[in-house]
Amino acid sequence: MQLINRQCRLAARPVGLPQPSDWTFADEAVADIGDGEFLVAVEYVSIDPAMRGWMNAARSYIPPVEIGAVMRAAAIGRVERSNHPDFPVGDHVSGAFGVQRYAVSDGRGVTKVDLDLASPAAHLGVLGLSGLTAYFGLLDIGKPRPGQTVVVSGAAGAVGSIAGQIARVHGCRTIGIAGGKAKCDWLVGDLGFDAAIDYKTEDVRRRLRDLAPDGVDVFFDNVGGDILDAVLVRLATHARVVISGAISQYNATEPVKGPANYLQLLVARASMTGFVIFDYAKRYAEGIDKLSEWLGSGDVRSQEDVVEATIDDFPDVLLRLFRGENTGKLVLALPR
Amino acid sequence: MQLINRQCRLAARPVGLPQPSDWTFADEAVADIGDGEFLVAVEYVSIDPAMRGWMNAARSYIPPVEIGAVMRAAAIGRVERSNHPDFPVGDHVSGAFGVQRYAVSDGRGVTKVDLDLASPAAHLGVLGLSGLTAYFGLLDIGKPRPGQTVVVSGAAGAVGSIAGQIARVHGCRTIGIAGGKAKCDWLVGDLGFDAAIDYKTEDVRRRLRDLAPDGVDVFFDNVGGDILDAVLVRLATHARVVISGAISQYNATEPVKGPANYLQLLVARASMTGFVIFDYAKRYAEGIDKLSEWLGSGDVRSQEDVVEATIDDFPDVLLRLFRGENTGKLVLALPR
Repeated sequence: MQLINRQCRLAARPVGLPQPSDWTFADEAVADIGDGEFLVAVEYVSIDPAMRGWMNAARSYIPPVEIGAVMRAAAIGRVERSNHPDFPVGDHVSGAFGVQRYAVSDGRGVTKVDLDLASPAAHLGVLGLSGLTAYFGLLDIGKPRPGQTVVVSGAAGAVGSIAGQIARVHGCRTIGIAGGKAKCDWLVGDLGFDAAIDYKTEDVRRRLRDLAPDGVDVFFDNVGGDILDAVLVRLATHARVVISGAISQYNATEPVKGPANYLQLLVARASMTGFVIFDYAKRYAEGIDKLSEWLGSGDVRSQEDVVEATIDDFPDVLLRLFRGENTGKLVLALPR
Repeated sequence: MQLINRQCRLAARPVGLPQPSDWTFADEAVADIGDGEFLVAVEYVSIDPAMRGWMNAARSYIPPVEIGAVMRAAAIGRVERSNHPDFPVGDHVSGAFGVQRYAVSDGRGVTKVDLDLASPAAHLGVLGLSGLTAYFGLLDIGKPRPGQTVVVSGAAGAVGSIAGQIARVHGCRTIGIAGGKAKCDWLVGDLGFDAAIDYKTEDVRRRLRDLAPDGVDVFFDNVGGDILDAVLVRLATHARVVISGAISQYNATEPVKGPANYLQLLVARASMTGFVIFDYAKRYAEGIDKLSEWLGSGDVRSQEDVVEATIDDFPDVLLRLFRGENTGKLVLALPR
């Protein structure tokens, strides 16, 4: 049977929010697999804010997606054909398979997925790069100590929701910043955050003064922009600001808004540190073990926002992230 | 004899560059000293960029100078009268005596000054808070390793000129950023910097690409603004940005220009850290020992820009800093 591989490719470098004209779609015949290779039918595509950065030509921690190339994406799929002894047909696997129906792999960078442990979407979220970003970013860079105050922005997102829960598990007072009452209620009511601030209707700076009168010890920032500036003026002495991302700035058509209050780092003797999760590859197993343990004990809850749609819907699903429409991990589930 | 204490007091909180109307002058009779007190005749006043921050009402690492109070300043003077056994008449002492002719002290925060070791101006500069800021900021926060590339902004200033020389002593490739050819020639020709960039006539970003093709490992920033942004895009992996100051922003009438390229901290897995020299008070002796040693061996040279003038000239002398007119440590020397 000749399989057809529907692909979403990058057609142009977006200015601002990605437009339909920034994408193109192609149908390719799936090639025969060689020795040591296997064919994956992609079932779940991870939708991540970082994707927007991969579309830019600027210097970054990873080369940009080339114009005309299949859009890069973490994904989970099922092995359909195999000439690789470690990846037999029927296995579920996770890897950077891209926004396409089929991917050929030689196994490098591919891990097996245990669907008895968690759903495919959870494997992309709490047990995937989102959870690992929260785990290593918060603990390794943020270094929270029990009793300290941890603030997380983008707190209802895939990374933020896990980061806040890890902070709670570590005995920290945890404050989430998110957009809208429903997300804030979910953070406090379902995920056990101590408090949440709705940046759409509340004055973040003033609320932080009330909620964290002794200052913020760790700020795990996924958002940047005005929210970063608001938290900088509330830093406690020797605070750590973890730069996980800056979703508010990724689609800016004007120059990025740098943190005008960055001199508060001096006032507070504080640090602001960036990190890239790929650097922790050798410690992924440690992170996944811990996250699995907390997931099993109920200390950490995972939430996925699974959108059942096609490869052609990917551009629309991606925009949901930037509109703040998702709660928890956003995943595109392809038809089987 | 009744001594008259001429004082420079803060009259108003400046907007932008301090204006004459932000200052007022007063003559006070010098009071009798009590038990355990001594009277200092101020001879040398340290002129520091940080003074501008002390004039603002904003939250900072030290309370603002109150309106109507004598302007805060580090200074060196001679003990004229004494009821304190440790500070006899004739000793030279260093302390936060303020912009005035006479100060009464009980000895707290006051240290003796050895004029056989270095000049009074050098005691305020390389052996004072400027040198200590360079020493602890570069070594403790920047953590340069031999062979790494260290960039210093405000490199011809009191702190920057010492920071760059300490980096050289530590076996680092050292690049200074300063304003004007004379300063740049001095950095390379006299202080042994490997290279200097004249930000007034050169493209800092492009020059850094040529001078530091493998990136900047430590950036010791005294300036902020566009120069900070230019260096951020040239950071090496795991670089450390030391926020020593931001003289380009202290007199801004518009909101501070935050570093638009701060997300390069993420790309480079880098950190940006602020510090306050007063936190190192218990280690000042260590720093002064080292700096004295390097001064004696000729590894570090000190340069002071000593302006002989009166208390009434202080406002003008302060403005020299913000016009970038000084090379090395700016000191106001009062008439004896």
